[in-house]
Amino acid sequence: MIKVQEALKILSKNAIDFGIEEIPLKNGMGRVLREKIVADRDFPPYDRVTMDGIAIDYGSFENGTLKFPVEGIVAAGAPKMTLSDNRNCLEVMTGAIMPDGADTVIKYEDITLDDGEAIINAEKVRHQQNVHFKGSDRSAGDLIITDGRVLSSGEIGVCATVGKSRIKVSRLPKTLIISTGDELVDVDQEPLPHQIRRSNVYRLETTLHHYGISVDTAHLDDDYDQIIEKLKLYLEKYDLILLSGGVSKGKFDYLPQALEELGVKQLFHKIQQRPGKPFWFGRKDDTLVFAMPGNPVSSFLCTHRYFKPWLDQCLKIEEVTQPIAELVEDVSFRPDLTYFLEVKISYDASARILASPVKGNGSGDLANLVDGDAFIELPQGKDTFKKGERYPVYIYR
Amino acid sequence: MIKVQEALKILSKNAIDFGIEEIPLKNGMGRVLREKIVADRDFPPYDRVTMDGIAIDYGSFENGTLKFPVEGIVAAGAPKMTLSDNRNCLEVMTGAIMPDGADTVIKYEDITLDDGEAIINAEKVRHQQNVHFKGSDRSAGDLIITDGRVLSSGEIGVCATVGKSRIKVSRLPKTLIISTGDELVDVDQEPLPHQIRRSNVYRLETTLHHYGISVDTAHLDDDYDQIIEKLKLYLEKYDLILLSGGVSKGKFDYLPQALEELGVKQLFHKIQQRPGKPFWFGRKDDTLVFAMPGNPVSSFLCTHRYFKPWLDQCLKIEEVTQPIAELVEDVSFRPDLTYFLEVKISYDASARILASPVKGNGSGDLANLVDGDAFIELPQGKDTFKKGERYPVYIYR
Repeated sequence: MIKVQEALKILSKNAIDFGIEEIPLKNGMGRVLREKIVADRDFPPYDRVTMDGIAIDYGSFENGTLKFPVEGIVAAGAPKMTLSDNRNCLEVMTGAIMPDGADTVIKYEDITLDDGEAIINAEKVRHQQNVHFKGSDRSAGDLIITDGRVLSSGEIGVCATVGKSRIKVSRLPKTLIISTGDELVDVDQEPLPHQIRRSNVYRLETTLHHYGISVDTAHLDDDYDQIIEKLKLYLEKYDLILLSGGVSKGKFDYLPQALEELGVKQLFHKIQQRPGKPFWFGRKDDTLVFAMPGNPVSSFLCTHRYFKPWLDQCLKIEEVTQPIAELVEDVSFRPDLTYFLEVKISYDASARILASPVKGNGSGDLANLVDGDAFIELPQGKDTFKKGERYPVYIYR
Repeated sequence: MIKVQEALKILSKNAIDFGIEEIPLKNGMGRVLREKIVADRDFPPYDRVTMDGIAIDYGSFENGTLKFPVEGIVAAGAPKMTLSDNRNCLEVMTGAIMPDGADTVIKYEDITLDDGEAIINAEKVRHQQNVHFKGSDRSAGDLIITDGRVLSSGEIGVCATVGKSRIKVSRLPKTLIISTGDELVDVDQEPLPHQIRRSNVYRLETTLHHYGISVDTAHLDDDYDQIIEKLKLYLEKYDLILLSGGVSKGKFDYLPQALEELGVKQLFHKIQQRPGKPFWFGRKDDTLVFAMPGNPVSSFLCTHRYFKPWLDQCLKIEEVTQPIAELVEDVSFRPDLTYFLEVKISYDASARILASPVKGNGSGDLANLVDGDAFIELPQGKDTFKKGERYPVYIYR
């Protein structure tokens, strides 16, 4: 039985690069960028008008001119125009190209338009005001987004702006989720008194959908020969196999033995933690096998504390800082294990993250998961954790 | 021009309930639950063994018995068995039903199995240990998930456990996103010097996909008659219309006038804020129209500070606390406007959320969006904001 930090180290050493693929930008949400996005031209690409109004030559205003005959109108999207006489002005629209011969924009609110002439009412006019100059944000070739970024709507917008209609992203692993155990029936079935519904597979599936991974699912009965026969095929076909249940010390928990027989090397089995102690992890060539405990809360914790960070590393997601939360009440926990306690997160006016323990009945209570939104990690080697102490939180919502 | 709080109030008054629909649980991720989920039976549904080992009658142990002949094995998923003699034991597997006649489980690690007999080595055995009793988490009929919850993987697991293969969720609005402006070209086109690519539509689309909303898109040129003709049809067909651009004071910004002509009542136009001042909001019957500024950063801010909270209210999402962050450096901002400053969020060991301003060139710089992950809301009526002061943050990642 190993410690939490050792398990994390082993997982990290076994992060696999699943490669790179090119996809349409439209499908990019949530995917991981694997190329650098650079400005394809200057931003803005031209001296851009930022207010609707008139464009003038500031020199004329400085020399005392307040009345400017209007030469014409410049719409956004029109090619560049020229102010032919510096005693005149052009009406200009937000987003338009600043005309040659003009350098300053005065907004409609500060002028009066009358009979083809604009009269300036503003008391103060700043040279070059209301113009966003070419290249002042970024120059052509500047790096805008580094690789490793998970694409959210802002990045999608930037990619669109620079014309990346197709993007390179991390390929996603071909994934199979397997439930095990004769006590399981499907969600739409009525379980007998000694049966329960197979919820872990549903939960894991939706977690993976979040990454854009579409998964296959399968079920294995507690029958050794069948397990061997099917697992053999699965190991050839998939990059990633997630097993739910079958890894405790029970007589019918055949999985560790079956996996060994098939050449899957056990990298660890059992972590000094609650919940999630019987977690098993192994590897055969480039296929990784996560065998999570059948208990739903244990499985949930292992998914969020181990599997997701591992997958993030495989997909080359850039690292972010770890949120730390403050306990709002004392917690005591005797066993010499790392204790992942379910908490409800809130925020206070002092910019702090607060963690309130969810009352429940230990690791078996799936219903607690929906009352909380994070696990707080209370370290091994301590048995009381005081109100006001601060520990890492893993937020799952 | 109204204040931020007034705009929020008007939006809140115009939240629409788009109704309820029933969908398969598999498609439930990210959707909003509109029914209460109750326990369909007790949890656990039977006295559940929580360790692999042997089940005994505690009374026998208390009377000094340490050696228990093994009567048989109880697998998880097997119907309930009975311990026929209280001097014997049954081997039991995690997840199995506790046999009648037994009340305590001793794990394999604490016994020696030899020639059909189990010998207890543990120094301490607690009455009823390693049994998770029927109904101790929840009783049949107990409320587990309230309506208004956004379904994440934990809730999907609970729904699966109680047999909800179909669930009632908020219906999503039929949505159209319209770009406007003759300066726009498509993402895969090469823009002329006076043109830019239409990135806002992409960005809005991906934001809405996050809710599970699939949207239609359209483009309107700066032609009044065409705008009137097309908008008329759109207003009949959609619940929600998002327009990008065309709402400033420019000569070709026909939208406010066109919308008025078509009977869309303007509820506000312009907010005392930067970025995003020209934001327009209106309504015709049960169709809502959001006309956002064409500037990408303005549009992004309006989406996150106004549109998303409004949509959350429409979909009946339960409210959560607002994160507050601490500024890590002084900021000064003169105009009498609410200032939404782009910041990068980090977390410190004191459980605080920290906000570092992203250096940039004002509201036009889309590239800043990707360097930050939140907007911090610096209130109107102040022009310096000191390091250490705390303000609400709207995290967009």
